[in-house]
Amino acid sequence: MAVDLSYSDQVTGLVAKTEAFIRDHVLPIEDAHGGDITAAGGDAVRTDLQKAAKDAGVFAPHAPIEYGGHGLGMSDRAPVFEAAGYSLFGPTALNIAAPDEGNVHMLAHIASDEQKQQFLAPLAAGDVRSAFAMTEPAPGAGADPNALNTLAEKVSGGWKINGRKHFITGADGAGFFIIMARTSGEPGQRGGATMFLAPADTEGLTVGRHIATLDKSMLGGHCEVAFEDLFVPDSAVLGEVDQGFAYAQVRLGPARMTHVMRWLGAARRGHDIAVGYVAEREGFGSKLGDLGMIQKMVADNEIDIAATRALLTQACWELDQGSHAANATSIAKTFAAEAIFRIVDRSVQMCGGLGVSEDLPLARLSREVRPFRVYDGPSEVHRWAIAKRTVGAARKAAAAKAARS
Amino acid sequence: MAVDLSYSDQVTGLVAKTEAFIRDHVLPIEDAHGGDITAAGGDAVRTDLQKAAKDAGVFAPHAPIEYGGHGLGMSDRAPVFEAAGYSLFGPTALNIAAPDEGNVHMLAHIASDEQKQQFLAPLAAGDVRSAFAMTEPAPGAGADPNALNTLAEKVSGGWKINGRKHFITGADGAGFFIIMARTSGEPGQRGGATMFLAPADTEGLTVGRHIATLDKSMLGGHCEVAFEDLFVPDSAVLGEVDQGFAYAQVRLGPARMTHVMRWLGAARRGHDIAVGYVAEREGFGSKLGDLGMIQKMVADNEIDIAATRALLTQACWELDQGSHAANATSIAKTFAAEAIFRIVDRSVQMCGGLGVSEDLPLARLSREVRPFRVYDGPSEVHRWAIAKRTVGAARKAAAAKAARS
Amino acid sequence: MAVDLSYSDQVTGLVAKTEAFIRDHVLPIEDAHGGDITAAGGDAVRTDLQKAAKDAGVFAPHAPIEYGGHGLGMSDRAPVFEAAGYSLFGPTALNIAAPDEGNVHMLAHIASDEQKQQFLAPLAAGDVRSAFAMTEPAPGAGADPNALNTLAEKVSGGWKINGRKHFITGADGAGFFIIMARTSGEPGQRGGATMFLAPADTEGLTVGRHIATLDKSMLGGHCEVAFEDLFVPDSAVLGEVDQGFAYAQVRLGPARMTHVMRWLGAARRGHDIAVGYVAEREGFGSKLGDLGMIQKMVADNEIDIAATRALLTQACWELDQGSHAANATSIAKTFAAEAIFRIVDRSVQMCGGLGVSEDLPLARLSREVRPFRVYDGPSEVHRWAIAKRTVGAARKAAAAKAARS
Amino acid sequence: MAVDLSYSDQVTGLVAKTEAFIRDHVLPIEDAHGGDITAAGGDAVRTDLQKAAKDAGVFAPHAPIEYGGHGLGMSDRAPVFEAAGYSLFGPTALNIAAPDEGNVHMLAHIASDEQKQQFLAPLAAGDVRSAFAMTEPAPGAGADPNALNTLAEKVSGGWKINGRKHFITGADGAGFFIIMARTSGEPGQRGGATMFLAPADTEGLTVGRHIATLDKSMLGGHCEVAFEDLFVPDSAVLGEVDQGFAYAQVRLGPARMTHVMRWLGAARRGHDIAVGYVAEREGFGSKLGDLGMIQKMVADNEIDIAATRALLTQACWELDQGSHAANATSIAKTFAAEAIFRIVDRSVQMCGGLGVSEDLPLARLSREVRPFRVYDGPSEVHRWAIAKRTVGAARKAAAAKAARS
Repeated sequence: MAVDLSYSDQVTGLVAKTEAFIRDHVLPIEDAHGGDITAAGGDAVRTDLQKAAKDAGVFAPHAPIEYGGHGLGMSDRAPVFEAAGYSLFGPTALNIAAPDEGNVHMLAHIASDEQKQQFLAPLAAGDVRSAFAMTEPAPGAGADPNALNTLAEKVSGGWKINGRKHFITGADGAGFFIIMARTSGEPGQRGGATMFLAPADTEGLTVGRHIATLDKSMLGGHCEVAFEDLFVPDSAVLGEVDQGFAYAQVRLGPARMTHVMRWLGAARRGHDIAVGYVAEREGFGSKLGDLGMIQKMVADNEIDIAATRALLTQACWELDQGSHAANATSIAKTFAAEAIFRIVDRSVQMCGGLGVSEDLPLARLSREVRPFRVYDGPSEVHRWAIAKRTVGAARKAAAAKAARS
Repeated sequence: MAVDLSYSDQVTGLVAKTEAFIRDHVLPIEDAHGGDITAAGGDAVRTDLQKAAKDAGVFAPHAPIEYGGHGLGMSDRAPVFEAAGYSLFGPTALNIAAPDEGNVHMLAHIASDEQKQQFLAPLAAGDVRSAFAMTEPAPGAGADPNALNTLAEKVSGGWKINGRKHFITGADGAGFFIIMARTSGEPGQRGGATMFLAPADTEGLTVGRHIATLDKSMLGGHCEVAFEDLFVPDSAVLGEVDQGFAYAQVRLGPARMTHVMRWLGAARRGHDIAVGYVAEREGFGSKLGDLGMIQKMVADNEIDIAATRALLTQACWELDQGSHAANATSIAKTFAAEAIFRIVDRSVQMCGGLGVSEDLPLARLSREVRPFRVYDGPSEVHRWAIAKRTVGAARKAAAAKAARS
Repeated sequence: MAVDLSYSDQVTGLVAKTEAFIRDHVLPIEDAHGGDITAAGGDAVRTDLQKAAKDAGVFAPHAPIEYGGHGLGMSDRAPVFEAAGYSLFGPTALNIAAPDEGNVHMLAHIASDEQKQQFLAPLAAGDVRSAFAMTEPAPGAGADPNALNTLAEKVSGGWKINGRKHFITGADGAGFFIIMARTSGEPGQRGGATMFLAPADTEGLTVGRHIATLDKSMLGGHCEVAFEDLFVPDSAVLGEVDQGFAYAQVRLGPARMTHVMRWLGAARRGHDIAVGYVAEREGFGSKLGDLGMIQKMVADNEIDIAATRALLTQACWELDQGSHAANATSIAKTFAAEAIFRIVDRSVQMCGGLGVSEDLPLARLSREVRPFRVYDGPSEVHRWAIAKRTVGAARKAAAAKAARS
Repeated sequence: MAVDLSYSDQVTGLVAKTEAFIRDHVLPIEDAHGGDITAAGGDAVRTDLQKAAKDAGVFAPHAPIEYGGHGLGMSDRAPVFEAAGYSLFGPTALNIAAPDEGNVHMLAHIASDEQKQQFLAPLAAGDVRSAFAMTEPAPGAGADPNALNTLAEKVSGGWKINGRKHFITGADGAGFFIIMARTSGEPGQRGGATMFLAPADTEGLTVGRHIATLDKSMLGGHCEVAFEDLFVPDSAVLGEVDQGFAYAQVRLGPARMTHVMRWLGAARRGHDIAVGYVAEREGFGSKLGDLGMIQKMVADNEIDIAATRALLTQACWELDQGSHAANATSIAKTFAAEAIFRIVDRSVQMCGGLGVSEDLPLARLSREVRPFRVYDGPSEVHRWAIAKRTVGAARKAAAAKAARS
């Protein structure tokens, strides 16, 4: 037992294969879309890419082995997902895009055998996509989950769900939904929430408009979803009634970290493009990459990449130990979302006019990564949670000390 | 003689009329475009808007009175242009969008009477648009103007121009071009440059593709332009031969500042939207606008707005005194481009999911303002110029002191 | 009426004389103290310096002409005070150090003729020093003035004051105190406060220990002060009873700005030293001042200096118009305190090992300027106040709009 | 083989013992010095502290077991050194203060058996202190080691050294010096350097004045040292002739990291004090620690602490694998020096007036940590080195790709 930051040969090999697959197979397809990265190319491209990923032996690194995946833990996912994120189409190719990847993770942990058969198996195989319906329009559950006001009412043989969601990633075309609804307490209080599984074609479930956002690459969009007297049977309860907030934690920590992994790959690509550019471009009697102000940006990118990776490593290891790692994932997510934004922004700046044009992928990447500072909890909410823990611990320690004396 | 930061009644009145015009007439039209701000709505919308601006008495605040404008100096332009910039369609409406506004400014200073009649008069009236063709693809003139390699060769009765430009704003649909071409020296050295006036339909002048960029609102796009044996007569020389770099200074300082004015208006709009949102939106048992982390963002925006305005005031006053104000405009432009970006970015963040969506104008504004840190000289080039002056002055002072002792 | 940023010949002349006086007379004395800037050299040095300043015609630029000063308004003080602040001993020399300068300002505005004769006249002349006793130890008035709990009780013929103050600048050796005490309401509420004038030797007034702080240059230190049944007659009331918080505003805005002026001078000195160093020092095959990362620091300093000055100009002009300028002075103070810190910190960094040593004045300056982000209201309190006004105005506007429709 | 961030029971136990020792034994002694942390209390206090550390079983965690230490590798040192750094007197107590700690490390790697007996044994035991004489006054070796101009000339039976050093930490009172001197090439070129061992009382070695700096806690100061015809025998050569720059790398990487460990402990103490303060202090109708702007500072400190630790972990692991880890240690050092400064600075700010006073240790800590952004290579030099590697690698990759096609 001692600090060890090496990866097994299995992981090292999978990273190498993933890098090669992205470089040789996925990036050419992304590039062929000429800057249009809408929905990662769409479901047809997705099918082709996933077939190729299966052929290359890099498909579903995160899924349980019994469902055709590689069964990697969080620590081992980090370098593989980062390699996949190098292309905006990469996560789709490996079937590790949000929200499917997080849903696979959660179903593997919580679902009943029957539910696994019905929902997890086809999802892990890429046969269907899925959505996770939690966020609501004001005054519902946004950054503050206690505001949840989609209601599930107990009826004979099941539950009747009513409410409205928005920003539901992947909803358009999803095969099924995981729905978070209130089953006790009042909006604004914690109370109890429950997760329900519902096939997309269940009566009373309507996918509304796509909410256009700065990011465009998510397959299935960010949609409005309405539940109007949606009936689900008792067997649709995921886990136990009123335990939805606790289960959300099972999903949230890892989902934050896999977001970081993928976006870090995207940021690294931006950085690589910019470094390649300044390494050769002449200006002011020098190569740009030999000028101090450019060197500062290059170095700051390297520092941000290294720090993001290091925080990710720490949080993933804690998750692998069985912890919720709420604090470590908040820290890593907050730092990473801001660092990734800075990395891409500096990469844009290094390339000047080209950087803000669509002739390079940098402008596109800058749009894609910006929302990460909001999605999965805005930086402000994570900072608030981190500070509450820290200040709370100080108060507890002071009280304990006072009690001793 | 003493510090006075008040404006004349004429200016105060024009600001008020411009604010009302933007609010009542222009913003509704921008909003009606539903997030599509491409080319500020296009030339048809432009014609309508400019007619309305004339009716409202706010058209062409910068143009000489004899050409139908209000004849405002730089200091007085600041609050008027900021008010116009509050809508992305506002500068087009008032005929003060780039590059026309800067071209009016330069033609008013340098053009011959005949050239004024032919080019300035219709431009000031909004009858035609124009383009300023300076920036070139690598290895030509970009951030480093000495790399200029479009060549103008003296031929009988005029000049023959060959070369390629890119990022030429407004080129598509422009009535005429101001072309910067080398008339002495070698690319990489300073040498001499000359400005030429050429109608858009001159043989040998071709407008190529639009370079897609993060910003979309510029009418006429950012285009590639080619000159192939383009002949212009001697009367097409703007000012004197070989004086192009000096004339560029006449245009650059003011053009930087009017960019700041317009973008500051856009940033202020983003800020106003965000403040309006957090003032009312509930979350975490409070209005968001009463939470400390949100208050910090609000205050930082106010500080950035105030500092941008204050630096602008300083630089404009220097310009109005007849100085090139190279240092003051570099300082104001560099600070402003970064501050405006921060203001819009914080505004996005304050609005969370809505902020990154197209349901509010914030995402759009964030794309529009990003390139300003590159256009009109990247921040790095301005910082380099500022530091060179400062360090150079220190060396001169040290040498003078040494000589005295 | 139009924007004018020029100064009168009187002011320009006074700035030039002050610069020469500081360079030729004050800096040599500061330097002779070999890094020990405790209490600006002490009262003996102060007497000598003030005599020299009178001889040089630069003494008391802020004091009313009838009290021997130059009678400058806030706008005109800015460049003069900045010139004086270039030496840490300069403000003392010109009699414009805190808190005397702010006390002169306030007494000139509020004191009765008799009070002016007794207190303002000798203070303006440099015959005595003074202190302003407002800040209290926890749980009293600190950043939150409503917590004021020094009490003044009405007794026959006057008032009896009890309470404790701390961080009272200049208390040790002050000839008299201006004391802020509660005369109505309860600690924690606003209620009413009153200002009282008390000679230092009044019974019941005790100056306690000096609180050692990062800054050392303040004459008279930052002291604890106790009032124990301190009796002051009715004639000691400054202005009117219960109006103390309002009068504090008269003092606070200008006092914030003069702090900015002086510290800006100090920061500029640090910058000049660093620029002089990097202009000549060799390293990495170049002069340091020609390396991009150093150039970035130089330029950022220039930008921070310019922005601080520009915000100062704006706020001072508002003050000169008779406004309390609460928002403009909060903005300028907050930006300035942080910018000045950055300027000095970058200057330290540019000089490397020498920068952190006492062989240059930079380490000393870095200690001196740090507390300014706390004194005169911490940045957080100013940001809170700025945001409250902004959000409050947005709510008012929304309510007005709702009322109209 | 898989990522593992746990420590062995030995290390965990040593950390716990160190924390208890610092809390119960060292901090009270530091506090008893009442803010005077000069030279960590001096050599007498050092002797007492080291005796106590031996009794507590926490002495010399880094030294080889055969020399009485715990023999910890770099990864294992991290938490122990951080615990020791919690008090400014802690590293001295454990005999892991700079420069002794780094010298132990280097001697253990490079010295001959005889040299180990003579120099390493007493140093590891705390019987003597030592100094590492590399840095020179301008125009010698500072941030740029190639400027080395202390010369060692081969003479019969040994070497004759002439030159001047400055900022030599611990020189006053050191028992011996490790001297870096040029043995081939010219100042300004790389050439060859050699390290020599010299007892402090060798003729020709003079310790000059202490250079006063912002930090005060280093025992033996930062001194000027002169070598005038200093003769050392051939047996004084440490390792091989002309290999000094390579050996410096052996020392530099680990020394950077142990600096980070110790200062991180100091920063964490500042943070703990500030959090304890805001957790209880009332203001603005709340506890300060429940206000958003304070929570932001608390969370940013937590993030900076976590990121520093994570980068440290990465770099130490690389060092333990036998790599020089030049890039990883540059990244970790640069980030850490800036993060540690921010942590302490925010801690000062959270405590307001108390924060800038000497009544809390925060002002003192803020002075102590500032120079770390300069010592061990200024941030600018590390960024330059990081960027050079990155851009160089990009060029190499581009050339390789070009060669393939």
